[in-house]
Amino acid sequence: MKNQRVVLASRPKGDPKASDFRIEESEVPQAKDGEVLLRTLFLSLDPYMRGRMSDAKSYAKPVQIDEVMEGGTVAEVVVSKNSAFKEGDVVLSYSGWQKYATASQGLRKLDPSAAPVSTALGVLGMPGMTAYAGLLTIGQPKEGETVCVAAATGPVGSMVGQIAKIKQCRTVGIAGGAEKCKALIEEFGFDAAVDHRSPQFAEELAKACPKGIDVYFENVGGEVWSAVLPLLNDFARIPVCGLIAYYSATQLPTGPDRTPELMAKVLRQRLTLRGFIVSDFADQAASFHRDVSAWIKQGHIKYREDIVEGLEAAPEAFIGMLKGRNFGKLVVRVAGDGASGRS
Amino acid sequence: MKNQRVVLASRPKGDPKASDFRIEESEVPQAKDGEVLLRTLFLSLDPYMRGRMSDAKSYAKPVQIDEVMEGGTVAEVVVSKNSAFKEGDVVLSYSGWQKYATASQGLRKLDPSAAPVSTALGVLGMPGMTAYAGLLTIGQPKEGETVCVAAATGPVGSMVGQIAKIKQCRTVGIAGGAEKCKALIEEFGFDAAVDHRSPQFAEELAKACPKGIDVYFENVGGEVWSAVLPLLNDFARIPVCGLIAYYSATQLPTGPDRTPELMAKVLRQRLTLRGFIVSDFADQAASFHRDVSAWIKQGHIKYREDIVEGLEAAPEAFIGMLKGRNFGKLVVRVAGDGASGRS
Repeated sequence: MKNQRVVLASRPKGDPKASDFRIEESEVPQAKDGEVLLRTLFLSLDPYMRGRMSDAKSYAKPVQIDEVMEGGTVAEVVVSKNSAFKEGDVVLSYSGWQKYATASQGLRKLDPSAAPVSTALGVLGMPGMTAYAGLLTIGQPKEGETVCVAAATGPVGSMVGQIAKIKQCRTVGIAGGAEKCKALIEEFGFDAAVDHRSPQFAEELAKACPKGIDVYFENVGGEVWSAVLPLLNDFARIPVCGLIAYYSATQLPTGPDRTPELMAKVLRQRLTLRGFIVSDFADQAASFHRDVSAWIKQGHIKYREDIVEGLEAAPEAFIGMLKGRNFGKLVVRVAGDGASGRS
Repeated sequence: MKNQRVVLASRPKGDPKASDFRIEESEVPQAKDGEVLLRTLFLSLDPYMRGRMSDAKSYAKPVQIDEVMEGGTVAEVVVSKNSAFKEGDVVLSYSGWQKYATASQGLRKLDPSAAPVSTALGVLGMPGMTAYAGLLTIGQPKEGETVCVAAATGPVGSMVGQIAKIKQCRTVGIAGGAEKCKALIEEFGFDAAVDHRSPQFAEELAKACPKGIDVYFENVGGEVWSAVLPLLNDFARIPVCGLIAYYSATQLPTGPDRTPELMAKVLRQRLTLRGFIVSDFADQAASFHRDVSAWIKQGHIKYREDIVEGLEAAPEAFIGMLKGRNFGKLVVRVAGDGASGRS
């Protein structure tokens, strides 16, 4: 039995390429006392991983060259030398892009009968909580306000829209292509959907927000941010959660430098911009699980997963995600059937 | 008896010039029923007035060409047809750049025995409350943190530094020139002072902030903001109160466009940028007056006024203020001796 893993072969210049990753075999590690040996069932692929491939200063250390790519996983305990876990337990772990790993901490046992275990990587996991905490704590949506979010069929964006709807806001989702825009309305219940690939994107967004925008949940930056800025109402709140449009940029856009424009807008319109990462709100985990589990049961929250098969498919799936090719929460099925957590 | 007033002659292109103002005579208005006739004792000159001279969209309407420049004033009631006021009362008003005006509302009676009446335009007025509300509500300074402010000998900046000191922060003031920097330490009790005119300004600011910056109270923008950005700590708060460096800019700085850099910094370091104007915090007026009056009595808050003589001096004094030539709260003595509110 061999381990298989995806390591960072080189730091991408611009968009990551397949050659920035390397798939290799290694020995399956041995569980020491206090540890468990985990077999990965699902690997989560998320935009933040682009940051880990770069050595630019950020809130987390980069993955080193020749090291395993980091990532959240759902895994099965195959050997346990830790009394808190037994063989066959399914856990949320952070094993990275590989089939086997050992761990002694940072594990959370999952209940496969409560929800499909892959949802611990999506709607009931990090992306879901990112949306929940960022929208409610920073965005503070109020009844009748307009809440706008891009990458809106993604696991964060679709959750932002649906929670904003629960809070009785007008919800405007931005996505790429007609099929995704259709899903925003029909599947996720957005009030309006705007295709950012349209040549009239800015005009269409303005039309979809007749009363302006009170909360813009920032996932993308770039052209979308430029189109949103003129629509922001006084006292608008902007939780800054991600900037996928910039992650692979190799240089700043050409001038002029629009920083003074942004600062003047912050001042004149009394905007609040606040960056966050989900771990800043770790103390909200219990309320998140309680609220979102209930909302799913009540039918207020729908979610969509985009499951690709096999660890070797992870690099291409990740590269595609950065270009918006996924549709729903992108997850790699590494082993097993996923429903029960058994293979 | 004639009224004298300063009107907006033309909208400035870039820095305001003397010719953008016109001093003219007019009839003294008559107080109607419910009104008082006011004689201006002091006129406040403040950076926000630059915005009123421009017709760019902002939170307040611009002054129209040939209309009297707006501004806060301390005035004496010379005729009263309003039962709430009697002749000789001294009031805080918003009469603008002129010697006489009528008003029926928006007046607050001052007690000349409690404090020099000109302080109602400074330390106990709009600038003081701007510092108080912006620093405490948005900046939320905590013991041991570093608070940085520019235009630090001005009425807002000096108050920010002194309140931050009361909150047991390290206070770093930025000002132009050795004399002002000396006053920051000796008069206003800042822990460090940095001269923004120094060729090594950025290095000197870094040196003055060995533990980085937790709260940057933004008054100026421009080069100061560029030097502050790399020093901001994770979770830093930036109350955006003013951008004097940009007010007279006729075009954006040359490229590249650094907006993505700023957004990435907001995200990675979880910064909070929030714009405000003092009227957003009108509900804090009572606590402001109570706290700041007490702090002045206890010797924790010092203030400095820069009083120029005569209404006709207002345009040049205002132009100089935008270039940092004033030293302390800039006030025009329009009439009277100011202490008693009588001439």
